[in-house]
Amino acid sequence: MTPVSLTREFCEQIVGLDDHALDGVIERASRRLLLNVAATAVGASRDPEVSAMIAVGQQLGGAPVGPVPGRTERLDAHWAALTTGFAAHLDDFDDTHLDTVIHPGAAALGAALPLAADDDVSGALLLRAFTLGCEVQLRCGVAMSPWHYDQGWHITGTCGALGAAVAAGTVLQLDAVQLSRALGLAASQTLGHREGFGTSIKPFHPGKAAANGILAALLAREGFTASDRVLDAPRGFWPVLSPRHEATRLLDGFGERWELSAVTIKPYPCGIVIHPAIEAATALAPQVPDPAAIASVVVRCHPLVVELTGAPAPRTTLEARFSARHGVAVGLIDGAVGLDQYAQARVLAPDVTALRQRIDLQPDTTTPPDAVTVEVELRDGRRLAEHVAHVRGSAARQLSDAELEEKVSGLVEPVLPGATQAMVAAVAHLHSSGLAALLDAVTPPAAPVGESR
Amino acid sequence: MTPVSLTREFCEQIVGLDDHALDGVIERASRRLLLNVAATAVGASRDPEVSAMIAVGQQLGGAPVGPVPGRTERLDAHWAALTTGFAAHLDDFDDTHLDTVIHPGAAALGAALPLAADDDVSGALLLRAFTLGCEVQLRCGVAMSPWHYDQGWHITGTCGALGAAVAAGTVLQLDAVQLSRALGLAASQTLGHREGFGTSIKPFHPGKAAANGILAALLAREGFTASDRVLDAPRGFWPVLSPRHEATRLLDGFGERWELSAVTIKPYPCGIVIHPAIEAATALAPQVPDPAAIASVVVRCHPLVVELTGAPAPRTTLEARFSARHGVAVGLIDGAVGLDQYAQARVLAPDVTALRQRIDLQPDTTTPPDAVTVEVELRDGRRLAEHVAHVRGSAARQLSDAELEEKVSGLVEPVLPGATQAMVAAVAHLHSSGLAALLDAVTPPAAPVGESR
Repeated sequence: MTPVSLTREFCEQIVGLDDHALDGVIERASRRLLLNVAATAVGASRDPEVSAMIAVGQQLGGAPVGPVPGRTERLDAHWAALTTGFAAHLDDFDDTHLDTVIHPGAAALGAALPLAADDDVSGALLLRAFTLGCEVQLRCGVAMSPWHYDQGWHITGTCGALGAAVAAGTVLQLDAVQLSRALGLAASQTLGHREGFGTSIKPFHPGKAAANGILAALLAREGFTASDRVLDAPRGFWPVLSPRHEATRLLDGFGERWELSAVTIKPYPCGIVIHPAIEAATALAPQVPDPAAIASVVVRCHPLVVELTGAPAPRTTLEARFSARHGVAVGLIDGAVGLDQYAQARVLAPDVTALRQRIDLQPDTTTPPDAVTVEVELRDGRRLAEHVAHVRGSAARQLSDAELEEKVSGLVEPVLPGATQAMVAAVAHLHSSGLAALLDAVTPPAAPVGESR
Repeated sequence: MTPVSLTREFCEQIVGLDDHALDGVIERASRRLLLNVAATAVGASRDPEVSAMIAVGQQLGGAPVGPVPGRTERLDAHWAALTTGFAAHLDDFDDTHLDTVIHPGAAALGAALPLAADDDVSGALLLRAFTLGCEVQLRCGVAMSPWHYDQGWHITGTCGALGAAVAAGTVLQLDAVQLSRALGLAASQTLGHREGFGTSIKPFHPGKAAANGILAALLAREGFTASDRVLDAPRGFWPVLSPRHEATRLLDGFGERWELSAVTIKPYPCGIVIHPAIEAATALAPQVPDPAAIASVVVRCHPLVVELTGAPAPRTTLEARFSARHGVAVGLIDGAVGLDQYAQARVLAPDVTALRQRIDLQPDTTTPPDAVTVEVELRDGRRLAEHVAHVRGSAARQLSDAELEEKVSGLVEPVLPGATQAMVAAVAHLHSSGLAALLDAVTPPAAPVGESR
């Protein structure tokens, strides 16, 4: 059969992709992303805004079939997707595809996990859904980058809905015609402007993308018709959402070359441009016994660090996540930077606010984005310096498995003590142990049904 | 208190609007729109796609508190909103704000009705919510017309989400701060490209807008924070969604001058540009006893009729809704044009397809959009002609109350025999009889809970 459109051709290739194409390097990369984003979802699961979202889901009273990582409550699949995708991106600690600035894991996990749990599918199918859900987001994003993002769209929300529809459609095992309709429905539900940055609306985007993707896939399965050429049409996804696009990039090397393999895992819960400076600061920390001993700090960095994260005096957790001075200050004082360093109390702590004022950011066009030099002058006249050539989590220096496990532990243990190893093992053995081990690891036992309604 | 932003000022004015500002002409206009759009929702309620949507809502298993006009099933409020807004616009038979091409009633009804039913609010509050829900859509649309629509957006979906959030927020009696956050959430969930036209995705847009509006309002009530300046911000609603905008039009004369009063009610279930030709054709019908007697038909019309609806041979209901020749043919043969004339069988009927081929559309730049001249030449040599200066349902000639009731009857009676008068009375006495009479009129008795899950 001759494909009728690019959209249909894309769906034929997605549905027809041999499982073996997912073996090897890409499977390992996908497992690491899955483990990472499940951990960020658990890590943020006790946030009051997650609780607000769960409260609304419970008011609506859906069937409690969908797990929410880190929580005892169960929600219907649509609401569990919303909440999971939201929590996974809430701390800005998940993952980044550097070429498009898409954070693909949250929407893919949010869409795949609740449906997989409800249908009790195999671990292999969950991983396939997660992998394809990420890859489709990235390919849609590549085809309209950087123009779409530059126009003010939050690309994680817009491309997220399409990837989520594919993740959900894969779990539901839709055929290519159904999947093309699900893409049509999802492409009509793109969302998110960059105005939302710095508020809860930013993580809301991948959450809602996950929920919209589930809706699209469920409606398509139920026989709902829709445009099956939304990626071709003159008033479809690309031309409406971006001043320029290159649709041919969607299919270029699909199944052979994976954008997913270029996704990096975040080592620090803050804007990615700050990461090199944090790494340098934490490396210097052992030589700085007392922050009061620091006379001044100079950060020679890529100019974007100053442009995006140059605000001198953050007052909130969200503002601190986009403050290079905060990252360097807590790095130098605490010697490690995790969620604790962005807690409201730490953002306003006197030792931190005092040191931030002595930090000078110097933009340097010869410094690459993943590099930095931090120079510290102590009051006793000594000078310390640390150069980072490629920061951990950059494309050139992905987190090692051990570093990833350490990150997972930092996120999971405060919420689910002792669960880290079970999560690591469940993701590693997803093909053999199945889905149940993963669900058991990421969620405490469910509350009795009567309480969760 | 000095408002912090245009968004907040807008919300202060919405929340603070005195009920008396809604009295009089605007209340009458709003009641008529409410009656009309409730009837179009009932009229489309047995469509297979509505059933598909209900099936998904039931799979998710929400609390069955939200009525769906024309149906026995009850869904959770979010899903009832989706289904109601979808059904209300499905037959393209609802309403039109000519300056923006927004169809405001569907999203406003979809958002207001399920929450109102669940909370058992007063009829007056439902009408206030519906009125404000429509007005906010229209004002947001005016501020970016025609540029936003011209870019390919389906403005009924994009502005619909904001109006729906206000409709839902009004039922929930949110304060101005909560409402501004609900608008922030809703503005992040705009949806719909014109690519969806001619498929089920077009009516999906106001349905999803209604559901998104409910989500936004519920989250805001639950304490979810979000940007409260989405209508001000440099990367917010306007600049991301439209190449040009005039934000000051949002508040211009709010509460005194109503865009709502310019909304027209559709007399025929098809593209509005075709309406004058249909009216002329139905007027000529009594003089044409047999379609075979017609030698040729000439339609002298506004050029947009040819541009938008010039396709010669529609094959489906959806295509026929955008075929001027089909409208003229069934008008001449059947003498009346309603849903029956767009049924698949009628679209393909031999008498209709034969006559369509003898109809010539002649664009005429001197003919206004709401006017037409139809000339019929019979095989016996006689010539008939009908000129329409202002079609029924145009701004200059709104449907009379009697014509509206006739339309409502045509939609409601096939689904809920005998319910027309109860609906008309329930809307007329919404302030005194309350909400229950309206809900009873538009929905058959609910199925037992066990069956509806």
